Amino acid sequence: MFDGDTIVAAATLSGHSALGVIRLSGKAAIDIADMAFRSRKGKLSDCQSNTANYGFFKYNDQTIDECIFTIFRSPASYTGEDMVEISHHGSPYIQQQILLSLTALGARAATEGEFTKRAFLNGKMNLSQAEAVADLISAESRIAHDLALKQLRGGYNDELKTLRADLLTLSSLLELELDFSEEDVTFADRLQLRSSLLTIQQQIGGLLSTFALGNAFKQGIAVAIAGKPNSGKSTLLNVLLNENRAIVSEIAGTTRDTIEESINIDGFAFRFIDTAGLRQDSNNAIEQEGIERSYKAIAKAQVVIYLFDASTATPESVNAEIEALKKNVDFNDKHLIIAGNKCDKLPCENEVKPQRIIISDARNETSFYISAVRKQNIEVLKDSLLSFARATDIENKIVITNVRHYQAMQQAFQSVSAALEAFDNKIATDLVAADIRHVLYHIGQITGEISNDEILTNIFSHFCIGK
Amino acid sequence: MFDGDTIVAAATLSGHSALGVIRLSGKAAIDIADMAFRSRKGKLSDCQSNTANYGFFKYNDQTIDECIFTIFRSPASYTGEDMVEISHHGSPYIQQQILLSLTALGARAATEGEFTKRAFLNGKMNLSQAEAVADLISAESRIAHDLALKQLRGGYNDELKTLRADLLTLSSLLELELDFSEEDVTFADRLQLRSSLLTIQQQIGGLLSTFALGNAFKQGIAVAIAGKPNSGKSTLLNVLLNENRAIVSEIAGTTRDTIEESINIDGFAFRFIDTAGLRQDSNNAIEQEGIERSYKAIAKAQVVIYLFDASTATPESVNAEIEALKKNVDFNDKHLIIAGNKCDKLPCENEVKPQRIIISDARNETSFYISAVRKQNIEVLKDSLLSFARATDIENKIVITNVRHYQAMQQAFQSVSAALEAFDNKIATDLVAADIRHVLYHIGQITGEISNDEILTNIFSHFCIGK
Repeated sequence: MFDGDTIVAAATLSGHSALGVIRLSGKAAIDIADMAFRSRKGKLSDCQSNTANYGFFKYNDQTIDECIFTIFRSPASYTGEDMVEISHHGSPYIQQQILLSLTALGARAATEGEFTKRAFLNGKMNLSQAEAVADLISAESRIAHDLALKQLRGGYNDELKTLRADLLTLSSLLELELDFSEEDVTFADRLQLRSSLLTIQQQIGGLLSTFALGNAFKQGIAVAIAGKPNSGKSTLLNVLLNENRAIVSEIAGTTRDTIEESINIDGFAFRFIDTAGLRQDSNNAIEQEGIERSYKAIAKAQVVIYLFDASTATPESVNAEIEALKKNVDFNDKHLIIAGNKCDKLPCENEVKPQRIIISDARNETSFYISAVRKQNIEVLKDSLLSFARATDIENKIVITNVRHYQAMQQAFQSVSAALEAFDNKIATDLVAADIRHVLYHIGQITGEISNDEILTNIFSHFCIGK
Repeated sequence: MFDGDTIVAAATLSGHSALGVIRLSGKAAIDIADMAFRSRKGKLSDCQSNTANYGFFKYNDQTIDECIFTIFRSPASYTGEDMVEISHHGSPYIQQQILLSLTALGARAATEGEFTKRAFLNGKMNLSQAEAVADLISAESRIAHDLALKQLRGGYNDELKTLRADLLTLSSLLELELDFSEEDVTFADRLQLRSSLLTIQQQIGGLLSTFALGNAFKQGIAVAIAGKPNSGKSTLLNVLLNENRAIVSEIAGTTRDTIEESINIDGFAFRFIDTAGLRQDSNNAIEQEGIERSYKAIAKAQVVIYLFDASTATPESVNAEIEALKKNVDFNDKHLIIAGNKCDKLPCENEVKPQRIIISDARNETSFYISAVRKQNIEVLKDSLLSFARATDIENKIVITNVRHYQAMQQAFQSVSAALEAFDNKIATDLVAADIRHVLYHIGQITGEISNDEILTNIFSHFCIGK
């Protein structure tokens, strides 16, 4: 059990509201709150765990507020320590007075994330779960929220545990060999060992590969809007943004270079990238540079909406455009939506339906007419975006979204690869064993079996105070 | 018991924070929360009142958050109805999802102040206590906070109850006379009746007179800084403001005409009014107008700091200035601080102490040297302001601070005065009785014995949602 002093912090935002909550955690939490608690019920320390107790908060003979004091006794609390949550009237003045009183009574003002850090140190959650708490609070779309909640509830813990167990078996076999190295005994079946290492490498590689996708979902699926100049890209972007203006949100921490705006459709966040027009055969150096940049933006997107002007295009011209696009960008992992815009100018304008334009029968590709100006078939376009998001079925997958986990996993991957190479090159067993210990070390960092002050400080400094 | 539907609202501000709280109130509050509650403990409706229960919030098979569900059973709750407070991770997304789920499960989004309105309708508090809740939340200084808390805990309830009882006795005596009017019987001792009416008039008058003071303390004590041009008024204001910059607050709802800034000294709010220089014998019409305005501002202040330039003034010149000031403004209810500024330019500059300049021996008057530029004796000035604030001893007084109460009390005063006049003029008993019923009506409005939808709607529309 972590043996710390008693900390205090506001857990809710400061401002005028119905309620605010201030929380205390530590050995003296209940005793400190008791000194301010005035109730016909008597002492807070006589109240049972998990009870909400009405009373006045009084300090130095001054009544500060009527409050509800909820107590949670160790170990059945968020931090694992004794805790008191004081629910007060939501006024900045009262919040400040209660905080000042509690620090005067012996509590220390908590630092960022200190409550959650204690939950980790007291074994209430592992490090990746603690990180999920911060992710959960900052989640702004359903998918980011679901990923954080999944991680909070365990995440890839089971996978990491299995990996760890396998690595420990491997490691102990090798260490045993080392102990008896002078007798030249080999305990481990070399083929079996190699196969285990390979499996571990594949498992780590598999988890690593989920990062790009996981991060895309967490920060928003990148959608590039491409097409020749005047195909209606900006109009489409405005239509998509305006219809969803109420739930437009800027996602913090994402690169704002080429990204125009983010919208939330049915719980999925999409980041729209408006690219420069893709004029073919341009001889203008500056324009050429713009086109290069557009291709780069398109290459980074998960979904590409390619617009062409349906009122002027011919089947041949569209095919040529798409061919040029595919020559410059690899569409293997992307979803391509080809939209014939300005369908209102087509002869059949009154009959526009979500009809497909059969341009190609490639997987990950769909096509139809729209009219950005008249907002026709925009719903079809949105459905197409959503079906891409849903098809990836990220909810039932194990996914890495945390950069720190990704980096630890990358280092684990390098070490396991080094172990495999050393093994294949018949390098001394002790070096292979050292590599495997490195793998264990890096994986242990994710869940916090291996941690140090620097890592912890770095993680929790990104938390809000009171969490 | 008020029989309403079940209402729901966020009780804390929306934003990224450790916790947020959403509250439900009404007959179905526990049942509705139960539909979302997932815990090994089983059902929320089986849990005892005032218990905090850990569980997942789930809706439509989607887990939204890990929460603490605290239940309060009727009548031992804020509203008097069954209530559930759901403490969730402080994320706008989660807050929104929980609110959406609970409304889908049958709760209705609460309107402003609807929880407190129910507390009133269910007899948990009277109307003036309900109003004190809003005052408490918006209180920004210790004195405003203390006044609100005092009102929440009962305030002048006892006074009003006594008044009401006296009025009812009077009224019933008069009504009795009316019943027997044809027999020309007089039950009431006329002298006794008159004396009772007079006492009631004085009591109401006494409460009315506390309003100006109460409101001054609630919104900040008005301090006018006056003096001739170049006496250092603005420098002094800046010094006072800069030293307290950290706790400067703008008080909402106060007239901003002449008020420069508000500061909080030791829990008391002071509003500083920087006036135009009081140049004597000015023939310039525009300047004369400015001086008139300054006198008006000074007349409204509770405290006047009169600055004179100590380095150039003579006892005679200072006395002349003060005399002119007093000729134009009534200082009967005011505190006058006469400060000889620029004392750093005096020969004895190294020995400046909080020495009094004896200019007058009037009560409510004090004088000393300061140097605004060198920040000398500013603490003495502040102490003088504080001692004025403390001397009024508002904390132990019964004080009206609410405009609605003041207006009702004014109407009660008019009616009691009319009753007294009618009585003295030997006007028919039934008219006197009608006047007394008016007094009862107006006093009943304060605590809510007399109320109607319009009054309630008006009061609670100024609350925040969730309170």
